[in-house]
Amino acid sequence: MTLPPSLLDRSVTDPDVKATYAVDESVGAIAPDTFEVVRARDLGDVVDVLTHAQATGTPVVPQGARSGLAGGSVALRGGIVLSLAGLTDITELDPVEATAVVQPGVLNADLKAAAAAEGLFYPPDPASSAFCTIGGNVATNAGGLCCVKYGVTADYVRGLQVVLAGGEVIRTGRRTAKGVAGLDLTGLFVGSEGTLGVVTEVVVKLVPAPDPALTALATFGSLSAASDAIVALRRERHRPSLLELLDDVSIAAVQAVSDFGFPGDCAAVLIVSADRPGHTGEDIARYAGLLEAAGATEVAVADDAQESDALLAGRRALHHGLVAKGTHFIEDVCVPVQRLTELITAGHEIAARTGVEISMSGHGGDGNLHPSFFYDPADEASRHRAEEAFGELVAVTLSMGGTITGEHGVGSLKARWLPDEVGAASLERQRAVKALFDPRGILNPGRVYWS
Amino acid sequence: MTLPPSLLDRSVTDPDVKATYAVDESVGAIAPDTFEVVRARDLGDVVDVLTHAQATGTPVVPQGARSGLAGGSVALRGGIVLSLAGLTDITELDPVEATAVVQPGVLNADLKAAAAAEGLFYPPDPASSAFCTIGGNVATNAGGLCCVKYGVTADYVRGLQVVLAGGEVIRTGRRTAKGVAGLDLTGLFVGSEGTLGVVTEVVVKLVPAPDPALTALATFGSLSAASDAIVALRRERHRPSLLELLDDVSIAAVQAVSDFGFPGDCAAVLIVSADRPGHTGEDIARYAGLLEAAGATEVAVADDAQESDALLAGRRALHHGLVAKGTHFIEDVCVPVQRLTELITAGHEIAARTGVEISMSGHGGDGNLHPSFFYDPADEASRHRAEEAFGELVAVTLSMGGTITGEHGVGSLKARWLPDEVGAASLERQRAVKALFDPRGILNPGRVYWS
Repeated sequence: MTLPPSLLDRSVTDPDVKATYAVDESVGAIAPDTFEVVRARDLGDVVDVLTHAQATGTPVVPQGARSGLAGGSVALRGGIVLSLAGLTDITELDPVEATAVVQPGVLNADLKAAAAAEGLFYPPDPASSAFCTIGGNVATNAGGLCCVKYGVTADYVRGLQVVLAGGEVIRTGRRTAKGVAGLDLTGLFVGSEGTLGVVTEVVVKLVPAPDPALTALATFGSLSAASDAIVALRRERHRPSLLELLDDVSIAAVQAVSDFGFPGDCAAVLIVSADRPGHTGEDIARYAGLLEAAGATEVAVADDAQESDALLAGRRALHHGLVAKGTHFIEDVCVPVQRLTELITAGHEIAARTGVEISMSGHGGDGNLHPSFFYDPADEASRHRAEEAFGELVAVTLSMGGTITGEHGVGSLKARWLPDEVGAASLERQRAVKALFDPRGILNPGRVYWS
Repeated sequence: MTLPPSLLDRSVTDPDVKATYAVDESVGAIAPDTFEVVRARDLGDVVDVLTHAQATGTPVVPQGARSGLAGGSVALRGGIVLSLAGLTDITELDPVEATAVVQPGVLNADLKAAAAAEGLFYPPDPASSAFCTIGGNVATNAGGLCCVKYGVTADYVRGLQVVLAGGEVIRTGRRTAKGVAGLDLTGLFVGSEGTLGVVTEVVVKLVPAPDPALTALATFGSLSAASDAIVALRRERHRPSLLELLDDVSIAAVQAVSDFGFPGDCAAVLIVSADRPGHTGEDIARYAGLLEAAGATEVAVADDAQESDALLAGRRALHHGLVAKGTHFIEDVCVPVQRLTELITAGHEIAARTGVEISMSGHGGDGNLHPSFFYDPADEASRHRAEEAFGELVAVTLSMGGTITGEHGVGSLKARWLPDEVGAASLERQRAVKALFDPRGILNPGRVYWS
C-alpha cells in the first residue's frame, strides 16, 4: 500500500516511531506487518485520509492515545492508522452556557483542568484520564470512577463534527441545552468505536464544580456485607461521587506492590467519596455510618483532601498491582447492582474450579467490575484455561441481565460475545446502520462486529 | 382501506369515538376523511398492525395521549392510528437499581407517583405531565420545567422494546447502570417521533427523590436584568430545579385569566425553585439574593410548599391565559442562554413591525422559549402574517446557533425548517437511517422529514 503524495508529509516513516502506533493497551495486541500512519494536523487531513481510503478500499483505524483495553485501535494489516492525537485545541469554553468545544486529541485531564479554571467540571474520568483523549472517550463512551454519581461520556456530549467514509463532513446534535430536531445521530456516533466515522470536534456539556472529595475506606469480612453497603449507599439521596470495590485477590495484589494498610484477611474493601459542595464532611460521616451498619469490620474516614488521597492510593495502585501480579485478560462486565455478590461469587467459583486466578474489582456502585484472569503467557494451555474462564464469566453476566462491556468497548476482544448480548434482530439492524455509514467497510473493520 | 379480520375487534368503529383519535393538540390539525383506529391491548396487537401495514403499504400513526403540539400524531388519510394509550402497566420498579420498566401508555404523572412511593423520582415533566404518556415522551424526547437541573427524557431511558415496520420486535440498550455494547439504537429511537418504530416497553432510570421545592418569584423592569439573573442562577453550584421566564405579553395574558398578583408594568417575571434535599430554604434565599443583585424590582420568596404553589400558579395558568387570549401558533425555540435577551428583543421587534402579537415565555434557564403568535382564524391574511412572523423568529433562532425545537418535536408543523437547522449532509444521513428502518415509508410518513 502506498499513500498518495498529498498525505506523505503527514505520514510517519521512521520504523521505530511507526511501531509505537501499532498497538493499544489491550492484552495480546500484535503489530501487523504492513501499515501506514498518518498524523492529522487538521480537519483537511482527516478528509484526505477518508477520501483516499474510500477510493482505494483501505482500512482506517482512528486512534487517540492508544490507551484502549479492548483492542479497538490496534493497527490493521495494510491499513492506515489515523492518529488524531495532534488535534489538541480547546477551541471554545463558554462559562455561561457551561459548554466547551474541543478537538479529539485533547486529553481528558486537560479538559478537566480548563473547566476547573472556570469553576466548572467535566466529570467522565477513566483511570487513564491523565493520558487518554476525548476522541477516544467519545469512541468508547468512556466511564470511570465518577459514573455512580455523574454518568458516562454520552451524558456530556451535545454535538459532534464527524468525517464520514469518503470524506464528507457532517455536524450532529446541538449547542443548546435542549434540542430534538431530527434523529439523534450524536448518540449513534458516541460509543461506535470508530466504525461509523471519525470525530473531529466535540461539543461537551460542563457542570458546576463540586468540592474536593472526602473519602472513607471500609473493610468487610464477607462479600454480602459489602454488597449490602453498596445497596444502602446507592439509595442515599446524596449519591456518593465514587464507590469502588476490591476483592481479596485484588487487595493481595495491591499489598504486594506496597503496604497500603489493607488487612490481609478481609473479603472486600469498599472506598466511597463525597464531593457535594459545602457538605462533604456531613456526607462522608453519614456514608461511614452506613458502612458500619452494613457490617464493616473497620472504617477509616478522611478529614481532608490529603487523607482522602491516602485512602484512594490503594485503589490507584490496583492497575500496577495486577500488572505486577502477571499477564491477564481484563473484563468489563456490568450487572444490576443487587447481583454483584452473585457475580463475584461466580468468579471465585470459576477460579476454584478451573485453577485460573481471578481478581474481581472495579466500580461496585455501578455493578461494573473489571475481573482479571491471570495466565502464564509462555504456557498455551494456561492461556486457553484463562480464556475459557473469561467466557464462563461472560455467560454468567449475560444470564444476570448484564453487559459484556460497561465502559471499555467491544473492540476486537469482545466481538465474539456481542451477538449473545444484543440478539440477532438488534445486531442485524446495527450492522445495517454500520453498512449505511460505511458501505465499503473501511472504518475499523473487524472491530465490534465480526465480519 | 379495510382492516384484516384479526384486527377488527381491536379497532374503533363508532364514528364519534373514532373522531377523538383524529387530531392532537397542534394548532390547525384537521381530521382526515378516512382513517382507521386500532387500540393495542398488547405487544401482539402492535406486531399485527405493523405486519399488516408493511404488507399493504398502509401509513401508521403511533399515538399516545394526543397531547403533542407539533402535529406528530394527527391521523393520516387512509392510514391507521395505532393507539398505545391502553398499555398502562408499570411492569417493574426496582428501588435498588433505581429503574422502572413501563409500557408506553403509562402516564408521566403515574410513573412519577410510583417512583415517589419508593423514595425515587422520574424527573421529565412536560406541562402535560398529568395526561401525557411515557411513549409520547420517548417519541418526542420530552422535556419540561425540570430540565434546567435534570435534563430531558433521553437522559432517563436505558433501553427499549420496539416493533419495527413489518412486525419484527427488537430490544435496544441495557438494564444496567452502564453499557457500551454495540451502537446506541436506544438514543436513535428516542425523539424519532414514530418514524422508525413503535416503542412497546421502556426501561427508565430513576433518581433519589428531592425535597418538595421552594420557589421565589421576581419581577424585572428590563429584559436584560432578567437575563442577567438567569445567567447568575445557571452559574450556581446548586442549580435551580426550575427557572421560568414570562415576558410582558405573557404576564398580561395570565392576569386576564385571574389576578395572580403580577404587576402590569414589568418587563419580565422570573420564577425559580430549589429542591435540594435538606437545603431548599438555604438555596432559595441565595437565589433570591441573586435575583435582587441582578436588579429585580420585587422578589417574593415562599416559606413552604403551599406558598410555592401560589407563586407558581401564574406560570401554570399561562397555557390557559394564552388560549383565552386567542388562536396562536406555538414555537419551541432554544438558544444559548446568553442570547436570550436578543431572542426576546427580536420577537418584540418582529411583533412591532408586523403587527402580530407575540408572547415570549418558557424555560428561560435552558434558553428554551415557547413564543406564541396570535392571529384571527377567520382572517386568512392575519394567519398568513402570523406564519411569516413565526418563520422570521425561526430564522433569528438559527442565526444564533439555536434549534427549531427544544422539546416538542418537529412533527408536521416544523418539518419545513429541519433542513435549515441540520444541513443537507446530516439530513441526508437521517433520511437514510429512516429508510433503513422503514423502507416502505409506512411509519408516520410526512412527519419530521418532508417527503
